[in-house]
Amino acid sequence: MVSPVTVSIDGMGGDDAPEMIIEGIELACKKNKNINFLIFGDETILSDLLTRHPNAQEVCEIRHAPDMVSMDDKPTTALRSGKRSSMRLAIDAVKSKEASAVVSAGNTGALMAMATIALKMMPGISRPAIVTSFPTQNGDCVMLDLGANIECNANNLVQFAVMGEVFARYELDIDHPSVAILNVGVEGLKGNVAVKEAAAILQKSTLPVKFAGFVEGDDIGKGTVDVIVTDGFTGNIALKTAEGTSKLITFFLKKFLSESWMGKIGALIARPALTRLRSHFDPRRYNGAMLVGLNGICVKSHGGTDAIGFAHAIEAGVKLVEQNFNEVIKQDLIKLTDVRENKNLESNENGILN
Amino acid sequence: MVSPVTVSIDGMGGDDAPEMIIEGIELACKKNKNINFLIFGDETILSDLLTRHPNAQEVCEIRHAPDMVSMDDKPTTALRSGKRSSMRLAIDAVKSKEASAVVSAGNTGALMAMATIALKMMPGISRPAIVTSFPTQNGDCVMLDLGANIECNANNLVQFAVMGEVFARYELDIDHPSVAILNVGVEGLKGNVAVKEAAAILQKSTLPVKFAGFVEGDDIGKGTVDVIVTDGFTGNIALKTAEGTSKLITFFLKKFLSESWMGKIGALIARPALTRLRSHFDPRRYNGAMLVGLNGICVKSHGGTDAIGFAHAIEAGVKLVEQNFNEVIKQDLIKLTDVRENKNLESNENGILN
Repeated sequence: MVSPVTVSIDGMGGDDAPEMIIEGIELACKKNKNINFLIFGDETILSDLLTRHPNAQEVCEIRHAPDMVSMDDKPTTALRSGKRSSMRLAIDAVKSKEASAVVSAGNTGALMAMATIALKMMPGISRPAIVTSFPTQNGDCVMLDLGANIECNANNLVQFAVMGEVFARYELDIDHPSVAILNVGVEGLKGNVAVKEAAAILQKSTLPVKFAGFVEGDDIGKGTVDVIVTDGFTGNIALKTAEGTSKLITFFLKKFLSESWMGKIGALIARPALTRLRSHFDPRRYNGAMLVGLNGICVKSHGGTDAIGFAHAIEAGVKLVEQNFNEVIKQDLIKLTDVRENKNLESNENGILN
Repeated sequence: MVSPVTVSIDGMGGDDAPEMIIEGIELACKKNKNINFLIFGDETILSDLLTRHPNAQEVCEIRHAPDMVSMDDKPTTALRSGKRSSMRLAIDAVKSKEASAVVSAGNTGALMAMATIALKMMPGISRPAIVTSFPTQNGDCVMLDLGANIECNANNLVQFAVMGEVFARYELDIDHPSVAILNVGVEGLKGNVAVKEAAAILQKSTLPVKFAGFVEGDDIGKGTVDVIVTDGFTGNIALKTAEGTSKLITFFLKKFLSESWMGKIGALIARPALTRLRSHFDPRRYNGAMLVGLNGICVKSHGGTDAIGFAHAIEAGVKLVEQNFNEVIKQDLIKLTDVRENKNLESNENGILN
């Protein structure tokens, strides 16, 4: 019997919190009997909701949090005045080791700032990154960073590669994930200094990373590699561009099908296939972006998700805990440090690995 | 009667050149009787092809070019040893004012390097940009830079905004195009230094630019604004991510429709609607990216396009010539210079507008 995992939950974060949160816990605990929850938020509201969700009630312990972080709070405001918020107290439970993972559907900037301050960076990692997985023509793919860091140097990108590779192995169950850096061309001479230097480090390293060099934007959808490494500015824009394009195509598919009788009849007959298409790209299946690189598992659920999506985010966090995700990264980072030290001795290129 | 436009053509550039090129000219000149062509390349091959295309033959003058730039040539190689290539001689015809625009389906890097060296930057512009238009939920949209500049400062982005706005007005016939900068959030405090400074300059300027602040990646497909300004690294990745996502969705649409009898029958009945979808996103309709900011109109056709796509690229170039595109930009840049000078006097922020 695997020892139970305790997850701390920001009970008040998300567009439809706290109802959606409790329903999500209900779904998650029906599927996995091995999770306990510490749920932070308004005690009265939460206990009232739990009486209507008997499965969740059995595995939840409510902890009262007098404040909450709003969706528009600036990270600095949240840090300063949110010390007794449901989000902060849920993070603190991971810090104090009462819980092994925290899940929040609240304000992303605030969660990032609070988690980084409270949990601190893992040894060997200089910046946390946001990572998630999404569907491609060739199975699922992992991309990071998706917005935690606007500007990144080569060293940050190399660390993202290490964390992304472990994430693909343990979250997506890919045996030897291939890793590439997102660039404007696949030739070595293209791109900015950071991507070129990061590629050079990964090429030379003895890390157990199957490094495939550079990929371009269209390789994301093709599924050319399992892990795509990029800075947070480009990654955020690429992910949102993909979401927007997906909506654009389905918008015109629906429009053209609905504008003629034959289109309508054809769509009716082909409905099971069209439903498969919709569920294949259902964002709830991919809900739960992780903030990696911290001393603790921190999962960001989409703010607008429903109970099904929130349950997915919980499952994703539990999986990382059970697989000992952070420990594996630490082991890999030690190998990276060895490479780094050798490299510095050999070539004295301290600059890029400061 | 409008005076005829002379377009110089790189007869040897593109995967299916020179056949595709001559067929493209044939299509373009049937549609617009007001174009003459100077076509550069192997004289024997080109004249042989022209005998089979009587409409094109009538408006084409062949100029022999002994060399050609290959698709894998590095820009530096092309610059050094491609002085008598069809691409370079076609560009030179714009420089000598024999032609008003050049169209090439050849090597993008080489075209950019050669055109920049031969035609030189327009006064007031420090970097050329690649611009194109594409479909959104809300009409067509313009984006630049798509890869000419890996790193951009605020000043570059402001110049791109000016050029993109004129491009949307004259190429897409939008009366008062709205312009925004691509960013990781719409709030003013998000993003890197370049986007924040560029936004501040555009906000304060008296330019006739309807500046809408920041947009995010998903706004590209939504068509939130008419012109999206970004650096070449992000723009290239965003555009290719959109292309890849579009292929990803259609891949699964076809797959799921073909995997059941009902899917197949439904697709057959709805075929006209599905054909409309395909032609709505037909990349040939949007073929022809412009290299803007130079003393001359330079159009880059997709290397793998066919005659229909190449004809579109010719039409796009001719339209810019007829609309006096570069002159309009020059007028707007004078206004920008005025703003810049006032701004410098007022705030002494020379740094960002050096």
